[in-house]
Amino acid sequence: MMIVITYDVNTETPAGRRRLRRVAKACMKYGQRVQNSVFECSVSSSDYVVLRHELDEIIDAEHDSLRFYNLGAKYSTRIEYVGQQRHLPVDDVMMI
Amino acid sequence: MMIVITYDVNTETPAGRRRLRRVAKACMKYGQRVQNSVFECSVSSSDYVVLRHELDEIIDAEHDSLRFYNLGAKYSTRIEYVGQQRHLPVDDVMMI
Repeated sequence: MMIVITYDVNTETPAGRRRLRRVAKACMKYGQRVQNSVFECSVSSSDYVVLRHELDEIIDAEHDSLRFYNLGAKYSTRIEYVGQQRHLPVDDVMMI
Repeated sequence: MMIVITYDVNTETPAGRRRLRRVAKACMKYGQRVQNSVFECSVSSSDYVVLRHELDEIIDAEHDSLRFYNLGAKYSTRIEYVGQQRHLPVDDVMMI
């Protein structure tokens, strides 16, 4: 199934910037970064549980926000895009 | 139906910052901002066509990126979140 993961991590502190990198790295194991704070992850149900748990452990629930959108198994018709489409590095802020 | 709209707008120029504000304002007419660059819009098919057209007109396809995720009509079970949940102002960058 395809899970779209979007996140806002408060990067006002060094700890926040570390969380941001760790969130991106965790998502990268399961999918691709399609925008600055958006990953598309094709995962099994069990992978999803593992990834969810990992992300829950990384973020600071008081300051950060994570959203998960489940597009299901037949997702190709559920995704549209306009404009730039680039494979994005995990670490950097996306330079578009 | 619920459409999740995510965007990366290149804000290195004043024109880019204007585009960013206009994208947010256009989306705000149809839904709510749930993260810095993420809107959840509950729209009819015809509204979606209108909104898509408006957004296509606003962005610079060479420098910006828009993605649309269609969660369908029965979407409540397709959305999960962790951490901060706030109603976000349209204009400002979200201060989380």
